[in-house]
Amino acid sequence: MSETLALAKDLIARPSITPADEGCQRVIAERLAALGFDCETLVFEDTTNLWARRGTGKPVFCFAGHTDVVPPGDPNDWDTPPFEPTLKDGMLYGRGAADMKGSLAAMVVAVEQFLAKNLQPLPFDLAFLITSDEEGPFINGTKRVIETLEQRNEKITWCIVGEPSSTDRVADIIKNGRRGSLTGDLVVHGIQGHVAYPHMAQNPVHEAAIALHELASEQWDNGNSYFPPTTFQISNIHAGTGAGNVIPGRLDVQFNFRFSTELTAAQIKQRVSELLDRHKLNYQLTWKLNGPPFLTEPGTLVDAVQTAISQQCKQPATLSTAGGTSDGRFIAPTGAQVIELGPVNATIHKVNECVNVDDLDKLTAIYCHTLVALNQSLDQS
Amino acid sequence: MSETLALAKDLIARPSITPADEGCQRVIAERLAALGFDCETLVFEDTTNLWARRGTGKPVFCFAGHTDVVPPGDPNDWDTPPFEPTLKDGMLYGRGAADMKGSLAAMVVAVEQFLAKNLQPLPFDLAFLITSDEEGPFINGTKRVIETLEQRNEKITWCIVGEPSSTDRVADIIKNGRRGSLTGDLVVHGIQGHVAYPHMAQNPVHEAAIALHELASEQWDNGNSYFPPTTFQISNIHAGTGAGNVIPGRLDVQFNFRFSTELTAAQIKQRVSELLDRHKLNYQLTWKLNGPPFLTEPGTLVDAVQTAISQQCKQPATLSTAGGTSDGRFIAPTGAQVIELGPVNATIHKVNECVNVDDLDKLTAIYCHTLVALNQSLDQS
Repeated sequence: MSETLALAKDLIARPSITPADEGCQRVIAERLAALGFDCETLVFEDTTNLWARRGTGKPVFCFAGHTDVVPPGDPNDWDTPPFEPTLKDGMLYGRGAADMKGSLAAMVVAVEQFLAKNLQPLPFDLAFLITSDEEGPFINGTKRVIETLEQRNEKITWCIVGEPSSTDRVADIIKNGRRGSLTGDLVVHGIQGHVAYPHMAQNPVHEAAIALHELASEQWDNGNSYFPPTTFQISNIHAGTGAGNVIPGRLDVQFNFRFSTELTAAQIKQRVSELLDRHKLNYQLTWKLNGPPFLTEPGTLVDAVQTAISQQCKQPATLSTAGGTSDGRFIAPTGAQVIELGPVNATIHKVNECVNVDDLDKLTAIYCHTLVALNQSLDQS
Repeated sequence: MSETLALAKDLIARPSITPADEGCQRVIAERLAALGFDCETLVFEDTTNLWARRGTGKPVFCFAGHTDVVPPGDPNDWDTPPFEPTLKDGMLYGRGAADMKGSLAAMVVAVEQFLAKNLQPLPFDLAFLITSDEEGPFINGTKRVIETLEQRNEKITWCIVGEPSSTDRVADIIKNGRRGSLTGDLVVHGIQGHVAYPHMAQNPVHEAAIALHELASEQWDNGNSYFPPTTFQISNIHAGTGAGNVIPGRLDVQFNFRFSTELTAAQIKQRVSELLDRHKLNYQLTWKLNGPPFLTEPGTLVDAVQTAISQQCKQPATLSTAGGTSDGRFIAPTGAQVIELGPVNATIHKVNECVNVDDLDKLTAIYCHTLVALNQSLDQS
């Protein structure tokens, strides 16, 4: 059994349903400490985080990830118990196998293998940023660790997040950015009344319908070479008391933008307000910026990763910014180059989550060779 | 104390919260039986109804009303206990005083007074149709009594419903019709998905917004000399799981038409379906006709009532079809001439419901003189 598989099984056996860690970080920290890392446990409310750093003054290469997993649902829906790692037909089954305890195991073993061959002083420090709050409200996890590092003026230069980025085969896709996510909570005020007396009421659904149509029809931008066009989606809409004879007094609408680097959150907010104002709506609108968009253009990090992938997989990965948010959104704004690279994501958040055992070793090799390639490129420069 | 006031107090003291009757109909039936009425109690599930008729073969003049009342809410919000009829400053306070135990008392006393003076054979039969399910779901009340009468081929020719039709002073308004009420329950189907992947979903809120705008903007008709234009109001709209990152898979919309005699329910249904089809929505639409519109044009009944009002109030009433539904909608479709005439409605369904004591006697006189005028007009014809 490979080192990576053995560690992945150890981590999966720990039922670390978000925000629980169940000792996963201790296992990782012990192995990193043995390699010369300074391991710091940062507890914020219900969340345990690990910041481990080897070296004190050079640019920082960081592996980032999470030990928490989404709930398994009814264990009886699984073919094997979700927290009993099980090998079958070349696959490792268990909650977190792909998202992302397999990646964590690969990262740790990759660093062990890399350092075993590179005893001379490195041109970079190594670090791990591990949280147990990526699948939950992501308030006390990576976000607060980054805030702590910023206060110390401690910077990450290059970062690989181990999110399962691959779709058909391991390392076919690198996520080199993510769209921004901006949520709006809109309340349109009307005047409640009896449906028999509409002249004494004002129906906020009637008032707002055309504005909602225009928001849904608007072309917000055309995207760019890295990002698809910005999208708008209404996720929730509610009005009415339940009674059939009452004109509602307010309409609640929640919507979400996934936006490219062609727009800022401020520009979107302004355009939405202008549209609503044009329809003379009586409204309140509150915004929540879940994360700004980020983009890591080809450069030192992407080049090193692509070199490693080309060696292991015979072809480089495709760069992509599609998909949902990840903790990369908290790391990138500090100026770090951030990419996401991990196993195939076909089974994540589902029953019978699994990862290909050979892919775990391939991923270990890619992570290790990324460090080799980075080392070489920095030595040459 | 007038006869009407005494009977009204007796009825108010009985806490007949819908659908309870609390013996009100028995009190009324005893007095009608003494006048030669055949009194029939028709119980349908939780509802007690009284059908009383004096005579067996002539056109039928009917007083219609209800003994049930809406709940009083917290009795501590009332200045006097809601089921203790209380006289103060010329007003009679208590739940049901205006809606419509005062009217019931006036009707009974009016018939007693009328028959005391008219001993000769009348050119019409007299009837009372009293229910205890007007303020509730109106399933087992007037609707089922009318169905029973229809099965027997027993017809009402002229009918006064004692609903509180007056606004500023007693008998300033006669309701000589009501708009129809038609409710639609619309489900628009989309495809649920993640907001980050809108190309794999279909948002039913986005699809439907322009159709809802057009429904709200449509001029359905222009009304006519008796009815205001038909109105459309959305009463409830709901979509979304509550989560901010999920595109909803369905949209539920409930709307209501209040429609004039210029349109039929079938015409409205067809126009709505055509509009929704034009926008290629994937939808289901179920309809509930709460009541078709009805209209009693000036004629035998309105003339007799206006003659009585002019005598008692020095000026005739204004005809109106405004406002909500009433049990008249169940009686009018049988071919009866139906009007609503009762006390001032300012306090109905509110705390401290009350009726002017002088108005009770005036209403008694109007009801009585309506019978006199009807008697005269039929004798002359």
